[in-house]
Amino acid sequence: MQLAMVDDTIQPLDEINPALLDRGTLFGDGVYEVLATYDGRIFALDEHLRRFAASMAAIGITQVDTDLIRRRVVKSFNAAEIPQAAIYFHVTRGSAPRRHVPPDDLKPNFFLTVTERKEDTQAKTNGIKVSTYPDLRWKRCDIKSLNLLPNILARQDAADKGCAEAILVDDAGLITEGAGSSFFAIFAKKLQTAPLTANILPSITRQFVIKAAANVGLNVADESLTPQDAAAADELFIASTTQDIIPVVNFDDAKIGDGKPGPLTKRLMDEFRTFTH
Amino acid sequence: MQLAMVDDTIQPLDEINPALLDRGTLFGDGVYEVLATYDGRIFALDEHLRRFAASMAAIGITQVDTDLIRRRVVKSFNAAEIPQAAIYFHVTRGSAPRRHVPPDDLKPNFFLTVTERKEDTQAKTNGIKVSTYPDLRWKRCDIKSLNLLPNILARQDAADKGCAEAILVDDAGLITEGAGSSFFAIFAKKLQTAPLTANILPSITRQFVIKAAANVGLNVADESLTPQDAAAADELFIASTTQDIIPVVNFDDAKIGDGKPGPLTKRLMDEFRTFTH
Repeated sequence: MQLAMVDDTIQPLDEINPALLDRGTLFGDGVYEVLATYDGRIFALDEHLRRFAASMAAIGITQVDTDLIRRRVVKSFNAAEIPQAAIYFHVTRGSAPRRHVPPDDLKPNFFLTVTERKEDTQAKTNGIKVSTYPDLRWKRCDIKSLNLLPNILARQDAADKGCAEAILVDDAGLITEGAGSSFFAIFAKKLQTAPLTANILPSITRQFVIKAAANVGLNVADESLTPQDAAAADELFIASTTQDIIPVVNFDDAKIGDGKPGPLTKRLMDEFRTFTH
Repeated sequence: MQLAMVDDTIQPLDEINPALLDRGTLFGDGVYEVLATYDGRIFALDEHLRRFAASMAAIGITQVDTDLIRRRVVKSFNAAEIPQAAIYFHVTRGSAPRRHVPPDDLKPNFFLTVTERKEDTQAKTNGIKVSTYPDLRWKRCDIKSLNLLPNILARQDAADKGCAEAILVDDAGLITEGAGSSFFAIFAKKLQTAPLTANILPSITRQFVIKAAANVGLNVADESLTPQDAAAADELFIASTTQDIIPVVNFDDAKIGDGKPGPLTKRLMDEFRTFTH
């Protein structure tokens, strides 16, 4: 009899929880998004849904309507009654016995959580330390997929070094982005960040950072930088959906500026706040 | 209240099935193995357990004893009473609310299936068609991880072209391996396959193919080859745990040899059979 074993328990294969045969688990065969809410409003929902549609299309999940996703997001957010929330959701190709090529009629699985989003005021006020790590990821980082093991290994390495984020460096010696964030450097009046390619997630927060930069009179340069460039920057910061902008005050043990969040970074944080509030 | 939504059903987050918060699903944060059994015996169990231990160590899962895994494999295989089985198992870092850096005390999850392994006699007798696809995978393919989305995309592309396997080609234009197999070419009395690097899975079946090659008087060359080289080979085949050797008779629409499984490939298949029986 075909069977499954979960920890020490044996069961007939056809009686197990279908979540155990989710292709999300067996292959990472799915895509996800994370949304932030501010004071009871979901930020940039349209942008996140558009990116999610692009991720699904890129891996060939064609049966999921983003309007349905939107309704589920709004319904669950309303039910949770958490004004400052992080909303995570993913769609996987479905549950089926393990085989690379999926069955034709597979129904995608949807999973979402609404959790409290705590602003990391300590990190925002004092800045964080970051360390570099090789960018081991696949060649389609523009797809927001569930294949995140290289990001986990990078973030764990950073944590082991007492750092809050790992900044990924590719084989050419150039910074791509953080393990879970975009990465930015300021040199005089120039804001520099890696250009969008297949090696980088098209970050929604990045879009708003660039808009904020224009509003405060910074020139934006889509140009890759090396760790050496970064260590010599006037200011550094990372940006992500759940924390928007966080100043970086130490890069691979090099102090940035005077070791405190820089003035232009603070202006960008204030400007970003006008988008979210 | 923090909550989860599974398809259309909302539940309190702390009441959901822990399988839904498996880091295997959320991040692909786990490693796996597949074993084949022949006539009631598990083939190369020691070798697979050694590789599994190496995979776990490489991603920092340190609490799982491979002797325990061995006992679970044997117990479930005995319970299933399927003489020709495929045994799949994985260990993930555990279940926890989504956060890149895992909690310290996380307990790994173990999952195993025993299913019937049907020998693909049609493929073995007539050979298969294969097509090339870019190797989009990460830079640690020597770790047998659950991050398999690039393999899925490659295999789906092959299926769309009427091919049974995708042969992955890296940025340098060299073949690494198949999406779910090792890849071999025969030129006169030479068996050629890509050398083991971080870009290739250290295939157990490959080890036995190389042993078989020595036994039948082939010279083995660990040298990468291009698709052009492969299309001009005397014989081609793939090798994997569940099907051992399968002849390749068509490579990107080029007929290999006379379009039938080659004589040396057949000798290797016979020789391989002496290992498994």
